[in-house]
Amino acid sequence: MSTEVLSGKGLAALIQQRAQDEARLLEYEGQRPSLAVVVATDDESTHWYVRSIERAAERAGIGCRILDLGHDATEQVLASVLKDLSAEPTVNGIILQTPLPAGVRTDGLVGLIAPEKDIDGANPLSLGRLAVGQPAFAPATAQAVVELLEHFQVPLAGRNVAVVGRSAVVGKPLSLLLLEKDATVTICHSKSGALERYTRPADVVVVAAGRTGLLTGSHVSPASVVIDVGTNVLPDGSLVGDVDEASVTGVAAALTPVPGGVGSVTTALLLLHTAEAARAQARLLEKPALVSGTAG
Amino acid sequence: MSTEVLSGKGLAALIQQRAQDEARLLEYEGQRPSLAVVVATDDESTHWYVRSIERAAERAGIGCRILDLGHDATEQVLASVLKDLSAEPTVNGIILQTPLPAGVRTDGLVGLIAPEKDIDGANPLSLGRLAVGQPAFAPATAQAVVELLEHFQVPLAGRNVAVVGRSAVVGKPLSLLLLEKDATVTICHSKSGALERYTRPADVVVVAAGRTGLLTGSHVSPASVVIDVGTNVLPDGSLVGDVDEASVTGVAAALTPVPGGVGSVTTALLLLHTAEAARAQARLLEKPALVSGTAG
Repeated sequence: MSTEVLSGKGLAALIQQRAQDEARLLEYEGQRPSLAVVVATDDESTHWYVRSIERAAERAGIGCRILDLGHDATEQVLASVLKDLSAEPTVNGIILQTPLPAGVRTDGLVGLIAPEKDIDGANPLSLGRLAVGQPAFAPATAQAVVELLEHFQVPLAGRNVAVVGRSAVVGKPLSLLLLEKDATVTICHSKSGALERYTRPADVVVVAAGRTGLLTGSHVSPASVVIDVGTNVLPDGSLVGDVDEASVTGVAAALTPVPGGVGSVTTALLLLHTAEAARAQARLLEKPALVSGTAG
Repeated sequence: MSTEVLSGKGLAALIQQRAQDEARLLEYEGQRPSLAVVVATDDESTHWYVRSIERAAERAGIGCRILDLGHDATEQVLASVLKDLSAEPTVNGIILQTPLPAGVRTDGLVGLIAPEKDIDGANPLSLGRLAVGQPAFAPATAQAVVELLEHFQVPLAGRNVAVVGRSAVVGKPLSLLLLEKDATVTICHSKSGALERYTRPADVVVVAAGRTGLLTGSHVSPASVVIDVGTNVLPDGSLVGDVDEASVTGVAAALTPVPGGVGSVTTALLLLHTAEAARAQARLLEKPALVSGTAG
């Protein structure tokens, strides 16, 4: 059988356009949505990725400041920059880009990102709010998976979805988003033993484990829709996912490519979140009465 | 076959004793752990439950203040009480007891409980911290399930666990705790369709749906360990779980009773959390240098 390739590019363009439209609307009010990306690494692929966000932001009419603090930035410096950005009214969205310098504890730092500017859902409070159904930005990658599935009209309600990977940036928040869509969610990981026990009966299999070639044709069935969240850089510099594309193609019903699948949607979502954050923050400034209440 | 009854009473007594020991240790430093329970309902079974917490606290040497704000308490009053308790140094643990008066939004209120006093893991920040592996109090019921399983030496690592129910107080936090124990977790709910598809192959089935008789013998297998989190009050005032005890008995390997199962452990954990919170807060007062850092 032929396996349908679920490219993310069409959806990414749609979301990018929506971010641009949002930005244009804000222009009427003299606002320009603005994103700040904090970087503290020499890693080339990270810098390449951050520049791709910058270019996409430019195209959408969204400001993007890259704060490169260098590979030897201390936790104190990072903390102080994140606090300043959280307090700075001209910044609407904040990304703390990993990897961080050795010894720096990411945990404490992400808690310093103001929740209303936490457009990549890195602050634990954002994750907790997602879990209880309160408004919050989901991590963009996790949301990209759900948006892709909905874009290709893959049913989720009542369906069996296996998520391979239990990270705080993808597996866990994605599971929350899928539950919100009424899917039955199984979270598998490195200690799950024979993965096919969970992935073969699943209608949708999402792989976000960061291991090249982890999911093969023997893990899936002809009905499986497979979403590959992996982004592994091979020694030759090329990018591959967690799915063994050659063996899954011809077995599964559908598969997202890497690159050109989830990743492209993720970047577009970061911009849309920034525009949405800017709009929400503009509203707060306008009508303070709307936000006073018991939570203050 | 005979189904083992997994009573929670032995474990509850052990945890209660540990809470008492912690409280006694704090006495040497002139401290007395203290719990505040905020109530705003006329519901009799709630008052009965809160009094049972109070009695258990007394036995453990833990102070317990019940703040009964009445069934017509407004959101503003509840918010102001929660803020005061969060700021009050003599209060170490805070419980906002449900149900709340109609129209009161629990969501915003639980966010007002100081995370270090949130001994029932009600604040979304506590849930988010659990998700990312940061220190936080888990909701006591969710933790009681894991403690019970470990007490009876039910293996979790690499095992297939089905959780029926996706609430923010049990299903979701419990799934996080089980993942932490390296279980593979499937979260089922009212839209999952045929439950047995997920529960029969599971080594452990936890039912937390709030529906009398939801899990029957046909949903389980001879290897299943069944944990019943349900607490449903029948018209005659008696308490039953979500498991159809008669039909599961004789099929499953083991089953927790209701009452006398998860519930008894939950109350003991609330006290232990209060004692732990008191100790952590006493330490903070003593050695402020230990807690200054990037997260402040």
